[in-house]
Amino acid sequence: MKLIATTLATLCFSALAGAEEGKPRPDPKPSPDVLEVTPQLYQYTTDLLFGEVWKRPDLVPRDRSLITLAALLASGQTPQMTGHIKLALDNSVKPSEITALITHLAFYSGWPNAMSAVGVAKQVFTERGLDPDQITPPPSEPLKLDEDSEAKRRAAVQGSVGATAPELARYTNDVLFGDLWRRTDLTPRDRSLITVAALIAQNQSAQLTFHLNRAMDNGLTREQAAEVVTHLAFYVGWPKAMSAVPVLKDVFASRSAG
Amino acid sequence: MKLIATTLATLCFSALAGAEEGKPRPDPKPSPDVLEVTPQLYQYTTDLLFGEVWKRPDLVPRDRSLITLAALLASGQTPQMTGHIKLALDNSVKPSEITALITHLAFYSGWPNAMSAVGVAKQVFTERGLDPDQITPPPSEPLKLDEDSEAKRRAAVQGSVGATAPELARYTNDVLFGDLWRRTDLTPRDRSLITVAALIAQNQSAQLTFHLNRAMDNGLTREQAAEVVTHLAFYVGWPKAMSAVPVLKDVFASRSAG
Amino acid sequence: MKLIATTLATLCFSALAGAEEGKPRPDPKPSPDVLEVTPQLYQYTTDLLFGEVWKRPDLVPRDRSLITLAALLASGQTPQMTGHIKLALDNSVKPSEITALITHLAFYSGWPNAMSAVGVAKQVFTERGLDPDQITPPPSEPLKLDEDSEAKRRAAVQGSVGATAPELARYTNDVLFGDLWRRTDLTPRDRSLITVAALIAQNQSAQLTFHLNRAMDNGLTREQAAEVVTHLAFYVGWPKAMSAVPVLKDVFASRSAG
Repeated sequence: MKLIATTLATLCFSALAGAEEGKPRPDPKPSPDVLEVTPQLYQYTTDLLFGEVWKRPDLVPRDRSLITLAALLASGQTPQMTGHIKLALDNSVKPSEITALITHLAFYSGWPNAMSAVGVAKQVFTERGLDPDQITPPPSEPLKLDEDSEAKRRAAVQGSVGATAPELARYTNDVLFGDLWRRTDLTPRDRSLITVAALIAQNQSAQLTFHLNRAMDNGLTREQAAEVVTHLAFYVGWPKAMSAVPVLKDVFASRSAG
Repeated sequence: MKLIATTLATLCFSALAGAEEGKPRPDPKPSPDVLEVTPQLYQYTTDLLFGEVWKRPDLVPRDRSLITLAALLASGQTPQMTGHIKLALDNSVKPSEITALITHLAFYSGWPNAMSAVGVAKQVFTERGLDPDQITPPPSEPLKLDEDSEAKRRAAVQGSVGATAPELARYTNDVLFGDLWRRTDLTPRDRSLITVAALIAQNQSAQLTFHLNRAMDNGLTREQAAEVVTHLAFYVGWPKAMSAVPVLKDVFASRSAG
Repeated sequence: MKLIATTLATLCFSALAGAEEGKPRPDPKPSPDVLEVTPQLYQYTTDLLFGEVWKRPDLVPRDRSLITLAALLASGQTPQMTGHIKLALDNSVKPSEITALITHLAFYSGWPNAMSAVGVAKQVFTERGLDPDQITPPPSEPLKLDEDSEAKRRAAVQGSVGATAPELARYTNDVLFGDLWRRTDLTPRDRSLITVAALIAQNQSAQLTFHLNRAMDNGLTREQAAEVVTHLAFYVGWPKAMSAVPVLKDVFASRSAG
């Protein structure tokens, strides 16, 4: 069995270790390899991405960490998740929310991506010496659904999927919306945010319409939705961000018309 | 050169080693990391995915292993393939069929995915002490094509691709359909099954219409097609499964009308 | 922390070490694992892919290396990049061009893919003992834009994106087209070539129309465009190549009509 070393350039957080209380935290930096091999990319990363985009006011750093993690997980970018799980914890995402994000995205981007992310999360949680009850707090009462809108949603799934793939419709209604979305370890707005990010990362325009509407019902503003796409352009690439724009446009228009 | 350890949570088969002949084999379990970091995901995996979905009657475990492997390979999920190649062997997929699946999907999801899968397969085959002739039995006479339907298929490719990319049309006709699909190391139904799974994993609705029809010509029933999509929802994520449903609906309708 | 060995079959270049000056370089070969586990895939790789496709006259080996690297990077195929970065250097792609390709594709396929590629590039550059100034030559004056066509392009972005996601439109105009595309470390034709390859690898038909037209404006012929798709069929899989064909057809027709 050969052991092939993977030499990956990742976010470098060594600078953060020296940060003192009360002082503003220094920006994350790419590893020195990036400076050596691709100095122009290093500069875009420090000046443009961390120096400007992450600091824009339309989304708080916690939201940016949630959508970045969701996009990395949904794109299968396991090796790049270590630095971003650390950054997420620094940006006030709770360990239990990272756990909930992984579980949620098992359904929205497949089990293999979620399983791969578990290993990375465990490594970071261990390094940070987190207690088990920070990672998995005791469950609380599931959220109540709004009966009216839930009945409409169930009927829509039944209508579009039920006749062709009845068991897929059943799992969608009973497990995803009847169980997963009702868990309290993420707020509905946060679930919507990471679902939207995962859909953009997977170039899923068709599914994005429903979930962007749901995200806006759950409190996401137009400005925030546009900023999600702008931020993700850097993490999933321009083409997928550009493909999401017409969906935003249509959803904004339909909500104005309604 | 830095050596970055990849700590991946994967399927854990240690329990299987102790399984005795005649006793029902215990279900596969995720690694203990999954229980520790994401207990809710662990429960979904054991109760819902392995405890229920894999046991549903509409597809036999061997078919489920074939489409799971195809989806993992086509999604570039190399690290998650180890456990599933073992499970496939346990589910009566022959080593030579795994080899044939990798070769087939080199064409349907690209060389890099296939090359990465070879290393994983070799590791599992070595661990299990398989003989070379179990992995690569002597080739037999290529399958005969139905001349009439093959002439129509060639003409369709020539019509849609030939004028724009003549060499791509030639490779499609001569190498893919004239050679790869005629190899006997997988049955036509199995080739169709893994091709359909690879297309769903890549969100390729446009190509899915032709290959779902071909799969049904090769013996896949409507109930089985729906179950492929339902099973894959867990392995490629809900969005890609949902995007496949309208294609199934249209293909079912067109076959009823015909 | 567990260390999971990744045993990946990759391109094997040991044969190249013995190549003498003046003799034609032997073709790259897959690793011996491929011959052992998937002999049929080994044969397709040596006879068809390296023995025929890479030698076809419609694209020179340097162009094939550029689009192969772009497709691997955009698909997140980091482990398969080592052999292909070596092959690219052998095919006269300059180290500084590989650096520029990674930076360019950070924008066109997301930061995580680019960051992962940096580590692989550094490893190959170190192995080959390259000087820093071969990797990052001093920058030269940015390219001048054609004012007329650039004004039209800006207006198009502003019209389609500006009202919905104004900051995304601003970054597109000021950073991508105003800065990245004007850098001289890749020619405009090479930038177009790798952008087109990255779009095909990501199945981005919608974005492909604009960039294929731009590539043809930058000198790509119809025959070369068709050969890009034919070559990439092997590296991103048949389905994505087939999905690109209608875009080529439409772009060719619109350029004839114009």
